[in-house]
Parts: sequence; C-alpha cells; structure tokens
Amino acid sequence: YSKNVMRILVATDNHLGYLERDPIRGDDSFNSFEEILKYAHSLKVDMVLLGGDLFHDNKPSRSCLYRTMELFRKYCLGDSPVRIQFLSDQAVNFSNQFHTVNYEDPNFNISLPVFSIHGNHDDPTGEGGLAALDLLSVSNLVNYFGKTEDIDDITVYPLLLGKGETKIAIYGLGNIRDERLYRTFQKQSVKLMRPLENKDDWFNILVLHQNRVAHNPKNYVHEKMIDGFVDFVLWGHEHECLISPQSSSVGEFHISQPGSSVATALSEGESKDKFVGLLEVYKNQFRFKPFPLNTVRPFIMDSIILSDSKIHPTQQNQIIEWIEEKVEQMITKAKEKFEGKPNEKMLPLIRLKVDYTGYSTINPQKFGQRFSGRVANPNDVLLFHRKKTTSSNSKTGDFDVNKIKVQEEDKIKVGDFISEFLGNTPSDRLNILSEQDLYTSLHNFVEKDETDSLLKMVDLTINSTRKYLSENITTKDAYPDFITKYIDD
Amino acid sequence: YSKNVMRILVATDNHLGYLERDPIRGDDSFNSFEEILKYAHSLKVDMVLLGGDLFHDNKPSRSCLYRTMELFRKYCLGDSPVRIQFLSDQAVNFSNQFHTVNYEDPNFNISLPVFSIHGNHDDPTGEGGLAALDLLSVSNLVNYFGKTEDIDDITVYPLLLGKGETKIAIYGLGNIRDERLYRTFQKQSVKLMRPLENKDDWFNILVLHQNRVAHNPKNYVHEKMIDGFVDFVLWGHEHECLISPQSSSVGEFHISQPGSSVATALSEGESKDKFVGLLEVYKNQFRFKPFPLNTVRPFIMDSIILSDSKIHPTQQNQIIEWIEEKVEQMITKAKEKFEGKPNEKMLPLIRLKVDYTGYSTINPQKFGQRFSGRVANPNDVLLFHRKKTTSSNSKTGDFDVNKIKVQEEDKIKVGDFISEFLGNTPSDRLNILSEQDLYTSLHNFVEKDETDSLLKMVDLTINSTRKYLSENITTKDAYPDFITKYIDD
Repeated sequence: YSKNVMRILVATDNHLGYLERDPIRGDDSFNSFEEILKYAHSLKVDMVLLGGDLFHDNKPSRSCLYRTMELFRKYCLGDSPVRIQFLSDQAVNFSNQFHTVNYEDPNFNISLPVFSIHGNHDDPTGEGGLAALDLLSVSNLVNYFGKTEDIDDITVYPLLLGKGETKIAIYGLGNIRDERLYRTFQKQSVKLMRPLENKDDWFNILVLHQNRVAHNPKNYVHEKMIDGFVDFVLWGHEHECLISPQSSSVGEFHISQPGSSVATALSEGESKDKFVGLLEVYKNQFRFKPFPLNTVRPFIMDSIILSDSKIHPTQQNQIIEWIEEKVEQMITKAKEKFEGKPNEKMLPLIRLKVDYTGYSTINPQKFGQRFSGRVANPNDVLLFHRKKTTSSNSKTGDFDVNKIKVQEEDKIKVGDFISEFLGNTPSDRLNILSEQDLYTSLHNFVEKDETDSLLKMVDLTINSTRKYLSENITTKDAYPDFITKYIDD
Repeated sequence: YSKNVMRILVATDNHLGYLERDPIRGDDSFNSFEEILKYAHSLKVDMVLLGGDLFHDNKPSRSCLYRTMELFRKYCLGDSPVRIQFLSDQAVNFSNQFHTVNYEDPNFNISLPVFSIHGNHDDPTGEGGLAALDLLSVSNLVNYFGKTEDIDDITVYPLLLGKGETKIAIYGLGNIRDERLYRTFQKQSVKLMRPLENKDDWFNILVLHQNRVAHNPKNYVHEKMIDGFVDFVLWGHEHECLISPQSSSVGEFHISQPGSSVATALSEGESKDKFVGLLEVYKNQFRFKPFPLNTVRPFIMDSIILSDSKIHPTQQNQIIEWIEEKVEQMITKAKEKFEGKPNEKMLPLIRLKVDYTGYSTINPQKFGQRFSGRVANPNDVLLFHRKKTTSSNSKTGDFDVNKIKVQEEDKIKVGDFISEFLGNTPSDRLNILSEQDLYTSLHNFVEKDETDSLLKMVDLTINSTRKYLSENITTKDAYPDFITKYIDD
C-alpha cells in the first residue's frame, strides 16, 4: 500500500455485552467485534475508528470487560509498526495522566491503534466522569477521545494524523443528550478548531454519536449544523447500516453510517445486512469500500395481517397454524439466504409482525416454544399490533408498529412517569427540585446503575437553595413556611 | 545487589477503594499502595508479592479500577530489566489465554513484576469465575495466581523462579471459605506439588489469605496443617501488622503477617504501626527487613471507664466535658507521635472506648461534631460498651468490646438471619432448598453484588431436584403433593 494513503477501518455501535447471558445469543456481540478486528488485520489498515457504544452497558459486567480487554490485547499488540504520525498535542487529545496516543508509549508494542468516542450507552458518568472506555484508555488498549468538558460550550480539538503526504484531522464528539447538543448548536457554541497552518491541506473527519433521525424537532443533529469544511462524517448511534457514503443534501461532505454490528432490536433497520468500511484517504480525496460482517446472526423480518387469512376469529387453532406456516417459511428463507455463508449454522432471529385487527392475540412465549431450538429468539418471534383507529378517546393509544422508526430511544423511559405522576395543577408540581434534574438523575439511577445519583441531586439542590436564600433573603420572617421547616438544623 | 539474591517486597490487604467516597479518608488506600510501589522502586526489588484483598470491594468501582490500573501502569512498566527467570509452566500457573508471566510478554515492557493471590474481599465470583484481579491479569499489569478449581481437592502448583544460584517456589492459595478449607485440610486433600528435580534446592514460600486466629475451632488454618518443607509463609487476611518473621511453634518455617496497609476497622490491631517487608533469599537462607508505611493515617486508640470520673450520672454536661478532655489528649498524643513524620498533616483517626456501666450513653455523632475538621472520623470517635454482666436473661446480650478480636468477619452477616427467620421445628425448615446454599447465595447477593445469585441457586436446585425425582421416582403418584404442584409446566 502506498506510503501516502491512510487506511482506516470504520465501524460503530458494537454493543459488547449485549444479551451476554443469553445461552444462544450471548457471544454475538463479541464474535462480530472480533470479526471487525480480524478485518483490520487482513486489510492491513493503519487504524480503526469507532463511533461509540462499544459497550452496551454503561457499567459492563466483569466478564464483558475481561473479554473486551482480551480481544484488544490479542489484536492490537504486536511487532508490525504503526505508520501514522501523530501531529497534535496528545495532552489535549487524551485525558489520562499518561497523555499519549497508545502506540507512542514506549512500554507497549501497539500494532493496531484503535480510536473511539463514547456513545450514549457507554458515556462517562458518576465519579470522576469516567467512562468504561477510560479503563481501556488507562490500560493503553484504546485511544479514547471526544470527551466534552462543558456541554453548553463545546470546543473540539481534532486528532491530527499524518501519513506521507496525507494529513487527516479527526474531530470527535462523544454522545451528548440530543436536546442539549441541539441547544448548543443553536447558540453556535459548537466549535471545531482547525489547524492554523495549511488549513486546506487537511482531510477533515467528524465522528459523532447522535440522532440522525428526528424524534422531535429539537433532538437530532441536522446536516446543516455541520461545518462546511468537514469532508467526511462517521455517524454512530443509528443502528441501520447505511455504510456507503452519501453526499450530504446541504453540505459538501459525505456521511457514512455503518450501523450496529449486533442487532439490539428486532426492527426493520437492524434486519438489513451489516457491514464495516475501509476508508482510504489520499490528500483531499477518499475512497470507500464496505466489507460484510459474516458473523452477524441471520435475521428475517416480515409481517402479516390476520384478516387476510379469511379464517373466522373464533377458529384459534386454525389461526395459529396459519401463523406457524408463515414462520416456517421465514425459517426456510433464512436457511436459503445464508446457505454456504459463514453464519449459516447460527439459529436465525425471526420477527413476524402480526396485524390482529378484528382478532385476538395469542401468547407469543407459548407460541415461540414450538420453534425452540430452531430460532434464536423463541420468546419474541411474534409482535402483535392493530391498525391505528381514528378514535381519540384512548389515551395510551394503539399504535402502528410499521410507522415506528425503531430505535432503542423509543423505549418508554422511567423518567417519563415523573411528569405524569406529579399532576397538572401548579400546586401539584415541585417547588424546589427541578423536574429536569429529577428526570436526569432518575434516568442515571435506572439506566446507568448510578446508585448515588438521586442523593447527589438532592444534596446539590439543597445547597444551591440554601445559598440562594442566604444571599437573597435577609430576615428569617421572609422565608416561606415550607422552607423554614427544613433549614433549621 | 548480588546476582544470586532474590529480593521480594511483601505486602498484603491493601483494600484499594476502602471508603473511597469519604471526603477525608477517600485516598488513604491508594496513597499507601502507591507508597508500597515506591518502596519497590527505591529498594530495587526483583518483584512484589501480595497476599490478597488488593481490592476492598469484590466489584471495585470504575474509579477504583481506573486508579489501580493507573498506579500499576505508572510503577510496573519501564526499561529496567527483570532479572528473574521463570522456570515453571506458565500455562499451569496463569489462567488467562495468554498464559504468560507478564514480563515475558514481548509486547509489554514490564520492569516490576507483581504477583498476587486473591483474598476474601476480591475473590472470583459470578460469571466465568472471574475476580477483579483477572482484569489486571488480562491487561498484563499483574500476575494473578492461586485460583483453585476444586475446593474439595486442592493441588497447588508453585511458581518456580530463579535468580542466579537461588531458586524459589511460591505456593499460592487464594482465599477459600475457612470452614471449607479446614475440611479439605482435614481430609488431607490440600497438596503442595514439589518440583521433581533437586527438590531440596528450593526455598519454599507459601502465600495464603485465611484466618490465623480461630473464630471457632474449625474455621482457621493451624500451623500444623502447613507442610513441613515450607520455609516461609506470607500470611494475608489478618489486619494486624506482625511483619517480623516469627518461627512457627510447630514447624520449621517462619511466618510474616504484614497486615493491612489501610485501617478498615477502628480496632486495636489496626491501630499499630504498619510496615511492608523486604524478603531477601539466597539459596536456602533468607533475611527480612521491615519498612514503615509513612502514608498511613495516624490512629490513636484508648479507653476510659466513666465511673472512674466520680461524676454523678445525672451530670451529663460534666461527663461530656470529661470525655472531651480525654479526646483532646488523644489528639495531642497523635500530634506528638507523628510530629516531623510524612503523615503529620493528616487528620488522625481517634477511637475512644467508653465503659459506661452505671451511666447512660451520649450520641456519638453529635459528640463527634465538636471535633469536625480535627479528626478524620468525627462520626465514630466514641464506642460505648458496658461491663459484661452475669445475667443470662438477655438474648441479644451486652458484650465486652475489649474481648472482641476485632475483624471484619465479626460483623453480623445477613445470612445469619435465615436460620433465625425459619424457626426451629422441622416443619418450619426448608424442604427443597438447602439452607447452606441459600446462605451462600444471599451472602453473595448482598456482599458481592451478584444480582443473579439467588436466581441461579433456585434454578440449580430445581434442576437437581427434577433430576433426582425423574431418576428415583417412576410413577407420578409417588410424588409428594407439594412437588407435583411445581413440576407440571
């Protein structure tokens, strides 16, 4: 390979540890990530660039951390030399006390440098603002970058890398809650810092982990927010594989969205073939080639409408047989589609969406037992839904699954109940605690296992309230009753 | 130093992460462990040998793991060569897939090899039987050894190390529940394997992490259980520092008990000065020199008897003043004792045991606030106790604190309530679940944060019960009623 061409393997959303206790699917995330590292070797790339959510759980299990470290140690160390020159200030790019890109630490023989930002699953939380990736960073296995100090005022200093005549600037933006990032973009407070010298010589890559699809108008990154000088965007977070670079509709850059390397939802997007990509850059030009992930579990998705069967709704056995036949066809389809491929022996994921309008549902777990040993997900083969009705009196509502852009963010969040629980009149709302803070800390408690998040939030609120009161109210008589009760101690 | 003398720094029970959230004492465990690693450097030892409980929590926090890895990376990597020859089969000694002592992995520049067994705090539990130390092992920072496959039949293969004319065999026995190990010793099923060739040329070190003090007659290791060929025992687990090698009362070996490097209890044993030791071995002879840990927080312990004050029990203010004066004297004593020492600026731990026989207690937290900012443990400066009475009618009992050999194992364990809860008549006891298994899994749930331990235990029990029934009972009629209910699914 030319000494002037930088070869980068791009991938994202590996979700290591996803369903790790599942007897059938437990190894899937690790198998595909290992395949990615094997691609890096066989393609002799200069580096691997990951777009976040390397880990599925914010606090990966010990076993998950162990297996991950094992993989990095196995594939990223060795004697073949790294041919990338690191040109930016490593103390600015990397936050650990060693302040070095891993392959320049003289105590480690790194042969394959991996660079990664964090995603929403593995973002830095809790004490010291550490992410699981920090453990890979301090053990010198991965170059973790893209942490933001102040999410209201973001300055991104790129990694500057050189190989012969090619110079690359990689701007990393680890996941930030989409609503917050949207606001910071609106304030024009997201700054990508460009090198002062020869600034047009750089090939500029932005790697981010945010919504690309709008869930509401203010919680995604729109392409128009992306600086004009950017050449290539590696978009993490969206699980559908849209890896071939699409040229932006508004800017001059291209976007590659590799998608997840393991399906974490039985959705349309996840059922498509999955790839990683080889990005080759020579000066200001790039070439891109996708490579299929052959360890990904076969996944067939389809849908039926019960009323098409013409079976009378009372004939439940006949209905079950009809559905069963459909599932059999899907299993056959999986067999045919993957025949001769490396993953042909893996039990397939099967998801059949069933429109049961006018019919009743059947128990999906019990139904799935018929396919035990033949599909990877016997418990959730079927997903029932009804046609959206125009009736407006149902608050919880029926919904049309086909319309859902399925993403993990669509799950009901526990925080959503706070608002519901509190009621609607002002006297029902909270006086001192902020509902947003309560939402965030409850979310962190539940999703990120941050056991002290609620306590910390209450402490912070009490302290700031005390401070406010002592600064703004001088006589004790002026305190509202409900506060006087609490501040005497 | 002579090319024939093996220099080993010995330490144990570092309890990294102990009270890590305490604003005053949070760094203590890390500071002292760093001091130990600095000793290793300044004494130019060949290796460090640790006796277990490197971590305080079975699942160390992310921040604790991070800081630990940071310390090992900082102190154990570098260019100075390791002068130890590794002579035994590394695949037998080390269980990770790399099967190598860390300094022989060509991809790492290890300058200071650390060898450690696990203790009771950081033993391997949960999935894959991994310990926190396995994360340090897979990242090649520490050589973790002494894991036992079958605790009913234990075979220990030593690490065989050579330096010039000196040959050392290190037998590692990571912590096993004392009752179980006692039984295995009784069955003569603990075997230390000796090298076949020149077996008298080896200096034999046993490192273990068990009770040395008997809590009951069957839950400790008695010196007579230790093989006669052993020369030196590094005894972990007991926190009192008795580092100078004592010759055994029964065998020909010496025992060094370094004790903990951070006080995890405000007990007599922990209040003594703490040391690590330099063990120098030349052929079959050894020399030993203790080195003081100067980062250990000053700790003064004393006791008073309220009736000695001659103050009338109703004069509570006078009593408080009397106690306060005593505490002031202890703080002064701490100042004098540590003046000019490296740790003189650390707030001292103060523990005053108060015999209040004939008096009433005062609130220790409230009392401690008087010393806030002057002692490290304002909340538990005072410990009240009464003289043991001869009355036998109190079931919960008073107890004489002076008699307690204070150890963490003396804490009330949640499992102890199972037996109490179940009642005493046979009909109150469990029919299918084993109480011992329930005890163990509840213990692991509570102390080791193993969230699936109860579920796993129930699953195992159900499966083994099913198996038993299907093998031993042929007609369904023979099933007792309470079982039939459950086996139909």
